[in-house]
Amino acid sequence: MAGNSFGSIFKLTTFGESHGQAIGGIIDGCPAGLSIDFKAIETEMARRKPGQSAIVTQRKESDAVEFLSGIFEGVTTGTPIGFVIKNTNQKSADYTHIKDTYRPSHADYTYDKKYGIRDYRGGGRSSARETACRVVAGAIAKQLLKDIKITAYVSGVGELQLQKNYSEVDFSEIEKNPVRCADAEMALQMEAYIKEIRKQGDTVGGIVTCVLQNVPLGLGEPVFDKLHAQLGKAMLSINAVKGFEYGSGFAGTHLKGSVHNDLFNEDGSTKTNYSGGIQGGISNGADIYFKVAFKPVATIMQSQETINSEGEKVAMQGRGRHDPCVVPRAVPIVEAMAALVVADFWLLNKTAKL
Amino acid sequence: MAGNSFGSIFKLTTFGESHGQAIGGIIDGCPAGLSIDFKAIETEMARRKPGQSAIVTQRKESDAVEFLSGIFEGVTTGTPIGFVIKNTNQKSADYTHIKDTYRPSHADYTYDKKYGIRDYRGGGRSSARETACRVVAGAIAKQLLKDIKITAYVSGVGELQLQKNYSEVDFSEIEKNPVRCADAEMALQMEAYIKEIRKQGDTVGGIVTCVLQNVPLGLGEPVFDKLHAQLGKAMLSINAVKGFEYGSGFAGTHLKGSVHNDLFNEDGSTKTNYSGGIQGGISNGADIYFKVAFKPVATIMQSQETINSEGEKVAMQGRGRHDPCVVPRAVPIVEAMAALVVADFWLLNKTAKL
Amino acid sequence: MAGNSFGSIFKLTTFGESHGQAIGGIIDGCPAGLSIDFKAIETEMARRKPGQSAIVTQRKESDAVEFLSGIFEGVTTGTPIGFVIKNTNQKSADYTHIKDTYRPSHADYTYDKKYGIRDYRGGGRSSARETACRVVAGAIAKQLLKDIKITAYVSGVGELQLQKNYSEVDFSEIEKNPVRCADAEMALQMEAYIKEIRKQGDTVGGIVTCVLQNVPLGLGEPVFDKLHAQLGKAMLSINAVKGFEYGSGFAGTHLKGSVHNDLFNEDGSTKTNYSGGIQGGISNGADIYFKVAFKPVATIMQSQETINSEGEKVAMQGRGRHDPCVVPRAVPIVEAMAALVVADFWLLNKTAKL
Amino acid sequence: MAGNSFGSIFKLTTFGESHGQAIGGIIDGCPAGLSIDFKAIETEMARRKPGQSAIVTQRKESDAVEFLSGIFEGVTTGTPIGFVIKNTNQKSADYTHIKDTYRPSHADYTYDKKYGIRDYRGGGRSSARETACRVVAGAIAKQLLKDIKITAYVSGVGELQLQKNYSEVDFSEIEKNPVRCADAEMALQMEAYIKEIRKQGDTVGGIVTCVLQNVPLGLGEPVFDKLHAQLGKAMLSINAVKGFEYGSGFAGTHLKGSVHNDLFNEDGSTKTNYSGGIQGGISNGADIYFKVAFKPVATIMQSQETINSEGEKVAMQGRGRHDPCVVPRAVPIVEAMAALVVADFWLLNKTAKL
Repeated sequence: MAGNSFGSIFKLTTFGESHGQAIGGIIDGCPAGLSIDFKAIETEMARRKPGQSAIVTQRKESDAVEFLSGIFEGVTTGTPIGFVIKNTNQKSADYTHIKDTYRPSHADYTYDKKYGIRDYRGGGRSSARETACRVVAGAIAKQLLKDIKITAYVSGVGELQLQKNYSEVDFSEIEKNPVRCADAEMALQMEAYIKEIRKQGDTVGGIVTCVLQNVPLGLGEPVFDKLHAQLGKAMLSINAVKGFEYGSGFAGTHLKGSVHNDLFNEDGSTKTNYSGGIQGGISNGADIYFKVAFKPVATIMQSQETINSEGEKVAMQGRGRHDPCVVPRAVPIVEAMAALVVADFWLLNKTAKL
Repeated sequence: MAGNSFGSIFKLTTFGESHGQAIGGIIDGCPAGLSIDFKAIETEMARRKPGQSAIVTQRKESDAVEFLSGIFEGVTTGTPIGFVIKNTNQKSADYTHIKDTYRPSHADYTYDKKYGIRDYRGGGRSSARETACRVVAGAIAKQLLKDIKITAYVSGVGELQLQKNYSEVDFSEIEKNPVRCADAEMALQMEAYIKEIRKQGDTVGGIVTCVLQNVPLGLGEPVFDKLHAQLGKAMLSINAVKGFEYGSGFAGTHLKGSVHNDLFNEDGSTKTNYSGGIQGGISNGADIYFKVAFKPVATIMQSQETINSEGEKVAMQGRGRHDPCVVPRAVPIVEAMAALVVADFWLLNKTAKL
Repeated sequence: MAGNSFGSIFKLTTFGESHGQAIGGIIDGCPAGLSIDFKAIETEMARRKPGQSAIVTQRKESDAVEFLSGIFEGVTTGTPIGFVIKNTNQKSADYTHIKDTYRPSHADYTYDKKYGIRDYRGGGRSSARETACRVVAGAIAKQLLKDIKITAYVSGVGELQLQKNYSEVDFSEIEKNPVRCADAEMALQMEAYIKEIRKQGDTVGGIVTCVLQNVPLGLGEPVFDKLHAQLGKAMLSINAVKGFEYGSGFAGTHLKGSVHNDLFNEDGSTKTNYSGGIQGGISNGADIYFKVAFKPVATIMQSQETINSEGEKVAMQGRGRHDPCVVPRAVPIVEAMAALVVADFWLLNKTAKL
Repeated sequence: MAGNSFGSIFKLTTFGESHGQAIGGIIDGCPAGLSIDFKAIETEMARRKPGQSAIVTQRKESDAVEFLSGIFEGVTTGTPIGFVIKNTNQKSADYTHIKDTYRPSHADYTYDKKYGIRDYRGGGRSSARETACRVVAGAIAKQLLKDIKITAYVSGVGELQLQKNYSEVDFSEIEKNPVRCADAEMALQMEAYIKEIRKQGDTVGGIVTCVLQNVPLGLGEPVFDKLHAQLGKAMLSINAVKGFEYGSGFAGTHLKGSVHNDLFNEDGSTKTNYSGGIQGGISNGADIYFKVAFKPVATIMQSQETINSEGEKVAMQGRGRHDPCVVPRAVPIVEAMAALVVADFWLLNKTAKL
């Protein structure tokens, strides 16, 4: 099926191009009776918003969400929650230079080949503006999951890798620095590096770590919809993501079973957590943690050779205001997608046993 | 929804516990008119089969597939393909020692907590025996995709990492060595290492690399069902998988955009392929390649302390015949899941444009 | 799953309450490359619109559709088509009298019990205003199915039953009379009867017949998603529908097989069409025809005794402007839902065989 | 998607042709902890079984169900329940005469056109043998819904129509007569009539009425998955069904709103039940009742002219042992499908509100 829905019971369907009239979505299956904290939604949107700091794109986007249905007197009614975010301040003229040109490592070429047509303005549907709708829905999912703590932060920018694991850092640092790194010192280095990259007209990739705490035992639906499989899909569906690992991840492949096995305490908790809070695709009550790899943003402020739709060589250079590094703004998106996954499995798990 | 179906149009639904009467599945949505090569299915099953070499489990499992419907005179009819694989030679007695015991880093504990009951014999539904059904369906999907070449091989066992990338190795080596490494020399080292590990009564993790060649342009359904997102989910749903990366993957996060961008040739192909054959979630015609991380098998032949269902400490030691390293037998499973993903998107793409 | 999506490939998801800010929807899976005739969409909306004649509700509703995405320069792009219809001229004050009252044979009581909360203004989500979104999507589906002719008309109002079958009437009459009856004479009787009913402050039920012509052979997906099963669901999902029959329908139960069997002509067509154009759940190329039964509108301009949310007896009387008979305005809704079903199966059928 | 799955949470997927090796299915999403009464399943199967009385087909079919998974020590484990029913005593030779012939009002022609191939033996997938799998799953759903009483009976055979409504008949009569009519006197007439029809080598249609009692308030998912819409689809998906109506049905279209409205009692129940236990698509706690119309069986023991796959005229006559009237054996199938619908919505409703 056309891929603009996510989730089974708590289901988000989105629409919208970066330079159309609006983007938006429908959340179907949110239980009735949830008091919506609109302020909290705005806070999440502000974390994703362009222009929030000196190291992200200075583009201006309206991220004002209008809720059109499904919430009555501040409370969800069980009917679908429709919402729109208008596209304002979009200067379409900015994009005529890419009308017939395929930008390297963008989706221009593949959209054209798949659909035979493409809204070329600003990437159209393939623009990361689409992720604003994910943040809206994720913010509501977070409110549904009020006892679960979902925390993402930047743990890598280019070669700069935070060597501490999530239990060694201070989550309260995250929102204090524009990088959203969970370590103050490393944050300074990363910030400086991103500024340097921007000066070069270049971009750089990075890594976001996410931790889910207080997730109830039992979430996840083997054998295909394992909790980490759905988390992985959720993360990989975010623009620019190239990899996902949870628990011991790729490094865990180097270990022996005698080291990697998480031995039980008498209360069912485990002494170590190489499993990453999930065993057999089902949450075991321990912290769930995973890493998401983001490639460098494709739009750079340097001239590149590329082709147009006639297959002719043309030179092009990024214009406008783009992120030199996407991870600081990806943090709330990672959290939002995690919240959508957990909310869906949490609801579904109500039917697991008599 | 309960998670035992995979795919939307080409859809596999499976059932079965390792020590029940049988495992099996239903493939719905396979187009009519496909001549089935049963020999080819057997070949795939043999690649997954226990006991195939000295470095895998010596357990005996029948992997004989009986097709019950959907194929008439050797050709698919468009109706659902039902199949079963009987569980023979399963000695349930082998497993009474784990009836009330939660094996470390297995799914015993989480199944018990989620469902309140568990078929403890041999892991029940959480056993990797379930993957035999994936191989059956994948073998049919491969036949549907006859022009697409799907090749997986082992590229890491513990610390032993194949440093060559997929274009530098010889695929014809893969089936010549029991490790299924694509490099003869490295295969010998890996084999020796696995034997050493087995002697220790231990296990070790590893990495499988998979390459899809000749995939048509246009497969994948943004924004949530991006080709790589669904591939990632497919891989992460396989037992013991801890990570997935495609194209430049985690290493790509270290790169700058000016390096990472894949510049176009005039025919639409690209000079480099950091994108991994997918842009914006849609195949671009280049080779698709990805890596899958497998943790060390949890069952080790060493004594471990664990707990029983009463929360009491007990000692346990793996019995029977288990894999010291899962990756050699995971190779056909990775290929099968990749085939399922591609078959589904290939069919779906027939409706993308007028 | 929450039930606000319809279809699998060509999928409509809707939102909106009658007195919220807006209603709207997302059409996902419409193939790229379809030139949209916006005028034709407006025409369909006008057929459903309140106030269009003297025998329907005189309520004023804005039915202006704003398309927000998925259409670029008049052509579908393959990305989701988002649209909204603003709720204007809704006087919420009109509805405070039903805030705590359960109107007989409305959904007030069941929504309250299911969700524990309800947007009481004008029926909220259970209002037939929701069907406007179906008409929008159906109008696009019709354009996709340009060779298929979908024609609905009123064939019964109360005791007045059109005795001619669809091949004996003149479809060009339908839009010439306010009842949308396919027979001019009967239309006059029906119109007079509806006016009489309205004068009584009462309402009456009716029947809509629908005919699909030129449907290609092969649509429908046995065994559960038979073409008529999905058509039946589509129709039964429309407000006020109580029954569905196709082909020979209930009357066919009286017949013998020797009469009912449709004998073949040499070209594969049949001499009779008791089957209603569908055999085994798959279209056979003949005309598909079916009937849809609508109950009398529940809101009447007479005093009725009912209860409030405290379980106390209260008297109530319908206010405002309601339809004395729903079928004239139901005609385009029936057509729209039929179009959605056929569009979905038409796309799906592209994957039926190699 | 290929249409061999039914339900969302409690989901049945089936496979199998009438003359293949076996038919069977997978029930996914049945909650863990349900003690299975296998005897009760057999009882349901026996009600559907050929040869059970003098007025049904004397064909011999094995209906022995083998459960292969998902049930451990008699209790469901939450994993998928796989089952098969072997096809024994099927004489394929019986069917060679229809290999190249399209039987009138069967699905031979449409399957051939849709799929380009067909298992012609005994109708293949389009045979009603497939419904045995529905009865298996329905029998389990009934056990899940132990407080809900689901009762179907024959209310019409040809012109013989039971004039009493469901509250005026005695359900205990149903299983006492081979017709499964809920009225002893009418049963005798129907039985005599069916015997007469059989003597003529002919067949006749009929009607099954179904009543669901003690259904909890709140089941059904507006706006598209209304309870009656899904019930309608379920019934229309059964072989030979031509119509569905619930509550006042088609007759209700003749009524005025002032008569049809169901006025409330102070406890929320209603004085009348024209609504059929469903308002706005959601169960209201009252009895749900509906009627299902079955056409006459297409296979008759009289010579009919038809065509072969070359488009040539040929004469054919039904052979073997077929039902002169399908409704007595349809009764358990109607109940089974109703149970599947209710079980699914009952589980889903656990997520409706906080």
